[in-house]
Amino acid sequence: MGNQDVIGLAVIGAGYWGPNLVRNAQATPELHLRYLCDLDVEKAQRVLGQYSTVRATASLDEVLADPDVHAVAIATPAATHLPVALAALEAGKHVLVEKPLAANFEDGLKLVETAEQRGLTLMLDHTFAYTSSVQHLRKIIRGGELGDIQYIDSVRINLGLVQPDVDVLWDLAPHDLSIFEAILPDDVHPVEVAAHGSDPIGAGVACVGHLTVRLSNGAITHVHVNWLSPTKIRTMVIGGSQRTVVWDDNNPAQRLSIYDRGVDKSPEQQKISYRTGDMVAPALVEREALRTMMAEFAASITEKRAPLTDGRAGLRVLAVLEAASESLRAGGVFVPVQQVEGKVS
Amino acid sequence: MGNQDVIGLAVIGAGYWGPNLVRNAQATPELHLRYLCDLDVEKAQRVLGQYSTVRATASLDEVLADPDVHAVAIATPAATHLPVALAALEAGKHVLVEKPLAANFEDGLKLVETAEQRGLTLMLDHTFAYTSSVQHLRKIIRGGELGDIQYIDSVRINLGLVQPDVDVLWDLAPHDLSIFEAILPDDVHPVEVAAHGSDPIGAGVACVGHLTVRLSNGAITHVHVNWLSPTKIRTMVIGGSQRTVVWDDNNPAQRLSIYDRGVDKSPEQQKISYRTGDMVAPALVEREALRTMMAEFAASITEKRAPLTDGRAGLRVLAVLEAASESLRAGGVFVPVQQVEGKVS
Amino acid sequence: MGNQDVIGLAVIGAGYWGPNLVRNAQATPELHLRYLCDLDVEKAQRVLGQYSTVRATASLDEVLADPDVHAVAIATPAATHLPVALAALEAGKHVLVEKPLAANFEDGLKLVETAEQRGLTLMLDHTFAYTSSVQHLRKIIRGGELGDIQYIDSVRINLGLVQPDVDVLWDLAPHDLSIFEAILPDDVHPVEVAAHGSDPIGAGVACVGHLTVRLSNGAITHVHVNWLSPTKIRTMVIGGSQRTVVWDDNNPAQRLSIYDRGVDKSPEQQKISYRTGDMVAPALVEREALRTMMAEFAASITEKRAPLTDGRAGLRVLAVLEAASESLRAGGVFVPVQQVEGKVS
Amino acid sequence: MGNQDVIGLAVIGAGYWGPNLVRNAQATPELHLRYLCDLDVEKAQRVLGQYSTVRATASLDEVLADPDVHAVAIATPAATHLPVALAALEAGKHVLVEKPLAANFEDGLKLVETAEQRGLTLMLDHTFAYTSSVQHLRKIIRGGELGDIQYIDSVRINLGLVQPDVDVLWDLAPHDLSIFEAILPDDVHPVEVAAHGSDPIGAGVACVGHLTVRLSNGAITHVHVNWLSPTKIRTMVIGGSQRTVVWDDNNPAQRLSIYDRGVDKSPEQQKISYRTGDMVAPALVEREALRTMMAEFAASITEKRAPLTDGRAGLRVLAVLEAASESLRAGGVFVPVQQVEGKVS
Repeated sequence: MGNQDVIGLAVIGAGYWGPNLVRNAQATPELHLRYLCDLDVEKAQRVLGQYSTVRATASLDEVLADPDVHAVAIATPAATHLPVALAALEAGKHVLVEKPLAANFEDGLKLVETAEQRGLTLMLDHTFAYTSSVQHLRKIIRGGELGDIQYIDSVRINLGLVQPDVDVLWDLAPHDLSIFEAILPDDVHPVEVAAHGSDPIGAGVACVGHLTVRLSNGAITHVHVNWLSPTKIRTMVIGGSQRTVVWDDNNPAQRLSIYDRGVDKSPEQQKISYRTGDMVAPALVEREALRTMMAEFAASITEKRAPLTDGRAGLRVLAVLEAASESLRAGGVFVPVQQVEGKVS
Repeated sequence: MGNQDVIGLAVIGAGYWGPNLVRNAQATPELHLRYLCDLDVEKAQRVLGQYSTVRATASLDEVLADPDVHAVAIATPAATHLPVALAALEAGKHVLVEKPLAANFEDGLKLVETAEQRGLTLMLDHTFAYTSSVQHLRKIIRGGELGDIQYIDSVRINLGLVQPDVDVLWDLAPHDLSIFEAILPDDVHPVEVAAHGSDPIGAGVACVGHLTVRLSNGAITHVHVNWLSPTKIRTMVIGGSQRTVVWDDNNPAQRLSIYDRGVDKSPEQQKISYRTGDMVAPALVEREALRTMMAEFAASITEKRAPLTDGRAGLRVLAVLEAASESLRAGGVFVPVQQVEGKVS
Repeated sequence: MGNQDVIGLAVIGAGYWGPNLVRNAQATPELHLRYLCDLDVEKAQRVLGQYSTVRATASLDEVLADPDVHAVAIATPAATHLPVALAALEAGKHVLVEKPLAANFEDGLKLVETAEQRGLTLMLDHTFAYTSSVQHLRKIIRGGELGDIQYIDSVRINLGLVQPDVDVLWDLAPHDLSIFEAILPDDVHPVEVAAHGSDPIGAGVACVGHLTVRLSNGAITHVHVNWLSPTKIRTMVIGGSQRTVVWDDNNPAQRLSIYDRGVDKSPEQQKISYRTGDMVAPALVEREALRTMMAEFAASITEKRAPLTDGRAGLRVLAVLEAASESLRAGGVFVPVQQVEGKVS
Repeated sequence: MGNQDVIGLAVIGAGYWGPNLVRNAQATPELHLRYLCDLDVEKAQRVLGQYSTVRATASLDEVLADPDVHAVAIATPAATHLPVALAALEAGKHVLVEKPLAANFEDGLKLVETAEQRGLTLMLDHTFAYTSSVQHLRKIIRGGELGDIQYIDSVRINLGLVQPDVDVLWDLAPHDLSIFEAILPDDVHPVEVAAHGSDPIGAGVACVGHLTVRLSNGAITHVHVNWLSPTKIRTMVIGGSQRTVVWDDNNPAQRLSIYDRGVDKSPEQQKISYRTGDMVAPALVEREALRTMMAEFAASITEKRAPLTDGRAGLRVLAVLEAASESLRAGGVFVPVQQVEGKVS
């Protein structure tokens, strides 16, 4: 892999998210950042600042032609993911791409298949999957500590950048769907989805969205995404038969509260019983999720294995989003979700 | 009205809620509690305790025949509301009844019509409507301080007493629906409702429920009710074009947080702008809502006027519940809500 | 003990606290409330209400002469505790008395000795000692789970009723001192105290007070009591070598947060090491502390044993308060605390 | 000032704090970072990373001899502040120095006088003074919105790096003292201080400290600093005659809660009255305080004026610390604080 086994990297896109990729790539010893590429090269230079030895360029061709670039991280608008990522894969580069993987399921599938055919890493920047919170949830839920998942309720009210071509579901729900993907056991997955939306400010697209996702075990997960309030709320309640988790991402001192409480029903007696126990807030290491994500990107390339959030994970998120859009058009009926095999365990 | 204009009262039902009515009736100077009536007279006596001069009885007939009883407060199971309330109204007694008003819309309508024909007060114990929080919200929302209501999101996760004949929607959603009834402007009301439910513990009825209520102004309100967690959550987010309210009823020191923040769209520019301002937590008087409710019951009788939560308010809540049940049976499609005129302003 | 082994009780004082004693005495099956006694008999009657069979009286003599009264609960001003309690003890009645035990150490000692000579229960209404929070703290601290107590920091900012003859230390600090008494191990007790105070509103007595109490193990406990803010704060941080507790009494959903974190020093290496572990919020039963206190009063009488908060506990609190007052007069120097033997384990 | 009026800067010290200065200096357009200087040049190089054009050096002489270096930012141990800062001032460089200004008042005074004689900026990195919270408090307290300051109570429990030559008072209390310096009106300042400390782990210095600072208006401020818990607490309550502020720095969503509540005493009536009003949490811009601090450093150099946290502010903090140490040695008696004129308004 060239000089000293360090992976040469280029970041494509110097907009909202690109600077975060630049900063975290520079802090990852296994990566060597060579380019920041943006059509607006002055913007790329401003992001790099006056003290940097990294090159700014407006030419994607130049980047892809450089044999010292082994991988690219793409932070351009969703509509451009297909051509940019495809060009990179065809040039033999590993690809990290912002969510959503592509503008639709078909395009996403093309990227997945291309990467698989060429033996290249295709990874989604599902940032939340790399937070300490989600990694802890993944461990305890897949480890069985919560018991059966009975419901999930997520509220994500977030300052959004309203755009005429993407609705709030496509903008914010990928966070929740990628979290579900990361934390649920292998045998529990979305099977059908119903969506409601509203546009009280006349933006032309839904600014308030509700997703009801029925899982394969019968449980309902609900996601409320919302652009219309600068008051940020990011809470998720995960109810299990053994424990209940309340996740408040706005409370860094106590993001996760795990209640050792459950509800049982004894079939003979037709009676519900509640157990009441202590609450535990696990000690979580506060670190930047993007740094963990960058390390996983590098490791998956070096170890020639699928990353935790691989292209198929991105495809599964796309499948739910497409079903949600169809449900929205059809007035909220449940629409089945296309299944994508091959979950990384 | 007999002796010194004090209203003679009987409480019917000494179960879960009855003792609260007994205690608050005794603390209301305009009322004189004469009976606590329950088929299990020993239970009634235990509720009254050994220091009380109030009479326990098992006979509803005895209560209704007593001319010094001018009003009854009914805290019996929902299925019995129709016969008990009807008997009381026909005996010329004013009636306060637990939510829901009756087991179905038709029964509820019969009670409303009977009370109106006889000129008697029929009042719902929509307790939340008498909390300081709801009264403050009612004032600022109907007064226009929030601007247009853009969305409401309510989460009510509560220890429930699972019963085979009532699902979680009928048990808990009346709280949210009666709150909407109390706080929304006169020209904003539910027009259609979609409902989803699940029963992950095999209780025979939905234990997790999601209501999506579309209001007449196009806004979506969403209610998540849930019996399956002993971890109590009672939050409501109310988004307005001028302000956003976060109501956390588990935080007595700061139940209401009113953010002076809004979102605007200038049609020409297709651009969204956010305003960011301070948050105000209004000083609310902590007092027992039931006491305020009892005072309103007494006042509506004395002043011969409809109480804030009159029979028609109860009927409107029933209309949404019936539409929700129909949607649940039909797989979650939107079902129109029967309209009931005559909202008390 | 008369009829059916039930303890006949009279409450003396119908002011601020008396009604709480009346209510909780009535809810305690082992007690039978016979009188509420107040010089203002109409006030006593108002407290009892119109539905009660309990007698109101203005005559302490009448109460003490009644052989069916076996015990009295005294909620009169501190200056009257000596004569009222002494009269009761001399009439052979068991005594429950509001904190502080008496207006000074000498008077308190007289009550303790009188009760002990006559074999009567003398109990302090140290209400906090009967909360679930303090009972949990008592269990884990005396059980060694926190390790060595290294510091305690208490802030009690409370709406106070400023009175010209009692300063904020005598009004509020008894709560903290009685909590220390309840939770500290038998071999850890106050040995000296320094006090500072200020009176920024010219009330004539200290309205802001700081107590620094040095314990027998060398640790410092600090208490900040304050009348000058209607914003109530009641937090206590208890640092142990194994765990740290943060107690926020204004947060009923999570009063106690117990951090499994400690600090160690290895003497050879002159190095400090920190352990970081999870936080546990124990499930506490929410019940009225006064009810538990009343049950303990009844049990101590029936079982002829010292109650948890006996007269000597009250005397130890008085000893710290007197030393604090002396320190305050002397400009804040440390003043030794008079020791009182005989702690109830 | 050389090339394009940009101020050439060197950071001295690549330890705990230096990297923060490096990062924020690079983000400040008015500054040009030329060197990071540390005796351990490899450490300096590691801090700069592999993408930087800034020079690492081990030679302070080289830095001070470079005419393109106009200013230095010193983040070395307190004991070295005098020689390093003095050398820089004597070389004609402006100086930014970590708190505390020097190891004792006398050394600090020497630095202040040298800077003043040479017309150079001497600035303290009192970081908290540049947070949005303190700047808001400064505005409303000095603007009179709180009324008279009646008390301040600060708790700062913080993971500390225990060192045998600095106690917890000198390590942590400078934060509180510099905050008081920033927010108090010009005519309210510390006049005497009493200090208590304890060392429950045998570290050789006080690990738990209590400062009681009497202000010139008679109010008491109290500071509890503590190394012995990894559970971080940073709360400050500021009581005014018109409003009370609760500052919880661990709650980024609501750091400041300003209660429109007060307490009054009408002298004739000997009565206290409480006003209860709303609470306001002001919208604060979240930005890194160090960036604002760097901008103030640059501006004070360019505009040839004293910065907000000038040498004299640092000297006033030293004066309180010295009095505290003396009180600690003398068993907690009040010790007068040496006054330093010339507060920046």
